[in-house]
Amino acid sequence: MIPWRRVAVLGVGLIGGSFAAALRARGLAARLVGHGPSAPLREALALGLIDEASASVAEAVRDADLVMLAAPIPALPTLLAEAAPALAPGAIVSDCASTKRGVIEAARDSLGPAFGRFVAGHPIAGSEHHGPGAARAGLFEGAKVMICPVDGTDAAACARIEATWQALGARAIRMGPDEHDAIYAEVSHWPHAVAFALCAAIADGRHAEPALGLAGAGLRDTTRIAASSAELWVDILLDNRQAVLECARAFNEEIDAIGAALADGDRPALLAVLARASQWRRRLG
Amino acid sequence: MIPWRRVAVLGVGLIGGSFAAALRARGLAARLVGHGPSAPLREALALGLIDEASASVAEAVRDADLVMLAAPIPALPTLLAEAAPALAPGAIVSDCASTKRGVIEAARDSLGPAFGRFVAGHPIAGSEHHGPGAARAGLFEGAKVMICPVDGTDAAACARIEATWQALGARAIRMGPDEHDAIYAEVSHWPHAVAFALCAAIADGRHAEPALGLAGAGLRDTTRIAASSAELWVDILLDNRQAVLECARAFNEEIDAIGAALADGDRPALLAVLARASQWRRRLG
Repeated sequence: MIPWRRVAVLGVGLIGGSFAAALRARGLAARLVGHGPSAPLREALALGLIDEASASVAEAVRDADLVMLAAPIPALPTLLAEAAPALAPGAIVSDCASTKRGVIEAARDSLGPAFGRFVAGHPIAGSEHHGPGAARAGLFEGAKVMICPVDGTDAAACARIEATWQALGARAIRMGPDEHDAIYAEVSHWPHAVAFALCAAIADGRHAEPALGLAGAGLRDTTRIAASSAELWVDILLDNRQAVLECARAFNEEIDAIGAALADGDRPALLAVLARASQWRRRLG
Repeated sequence: MIPWRRVAVLGVGLIGGSFAAALRARGLAARLVGHGPSAPLREALALGLIDEASASVAEAVRDADLVMLAAPIPALPTLLAEAAPALAPGAIVSDCASTKRGVIEAARDSLGPAFGRFVAGHPIAGSEHHGPGAARAGLFEGAKVMICPVDGTDAAACARIEATWQALGARAIRMGPDEHDAIYAEVSHWPHAVAFALCAAIADGRHAEPALGLAGAGLRDTTRIAASSAELWVDILLDNRQAVLECARAFNEEIDAIGAALADGDRPALLAVLARASQWRRRLG
């Protein structure tokens, strides 16, 4: 693909920093300008993830042919509003948020006629680590990236964003934003809430200290994502709360079925839930 | 340590098979006799995990100086009852079950005067894999093994079992069976139930198929243990149901707090739960 001339990365943490590093490693961006809170921005510059740090959104996006939003969800509406008047003609705007409906609405509100060149995206590459120090050029190799075009999304802009992710080693998959938010509530957002709840219950219980020394690999894996930034996840969960609450209801039904079977000593009922779960999980691989 | 002369391994799956393989790899058992259901027993023999397969418990334990129980929980009382009359004088009996109160009661009921040489143990080395095909000699290297002596447990027998696990690369940690069952309900049994519930909810939902292709590393890790044998886990959960139900109550409080905060859009309340969880999880490492 043709390299980007100037890429503005708004938010230079794990995802934005890795996107910048990945573009640079493949020679896909002639110049990379970062914007974000001053401490991570300085760190990203020092780490060489970006060529230039800008304290001003307008300055960062000026003359950029690609503006990539990779900031926490609550920052996105303001970033879009500040970027809009400074966008170069033809500039493509994309994002990396874990939820898609909210950012698409914000983009529609702020970008006016440029909304056609807003391509909503979500790389499935997050982890319990965050910040520019965790960024790496290979983060997206083998990852999936959800691309959520809507009515009015420019086909060429969409194709160019997909080609960019593919050039970074990712696989682009298109789906509608409603479907995206419903599915990722199930496979990511609610599982995070559950992992947080598991740890909160242990942390509040009388074995919080010994559990740290006695837990095995099972608990470590099951709760790894609960080491994620609470600040980031609060906003993802709130932004997708309707879909997440639907997952909570479905999950609570299973938990209640397990609790009732345990209380009744009903082995067949307990086995039915566990066998169904285990069968699905083995298919996941 | 002085090698065992003849070790009877009752149950030759992941844990029993690995115990046998580990003893053999270190020259710590002159002869290894396995007993179990015929298919896995044949497999264990074919894989060279054991020297000899015996269809009879009495025959397997005859002349053994160590009898290691590594069968599923419901099989343990019968195995103990069948082994008791055939035990050699001075033979030490131990086990690997994930719960400790039940097997200790069964041993007390069956072993009579030999109960002093029953040393309850629990290697923290399970995984979603099971069966002799998953066994490996290095399974216990770096693992913890809980040792739960009770009033009347022979100190020399206990020390010999601890020395054996240590010789296999594990760290032996002593604790009472009640404390063991309460802590492992929190750090292992209930987290398994939660992982099963997460998968059951997705498996029953309208995205069961697409979720298989769209899930990221987060869901894979969070639910890895839900690929475990449903049959094995039903019996662990039922055997430890009082402690597990207590965990369920504590967990449900956190889940309810998360649900209420989401429904109310109460960011500070949601952040309080997630931050507490995340802080504890980071200490787990």
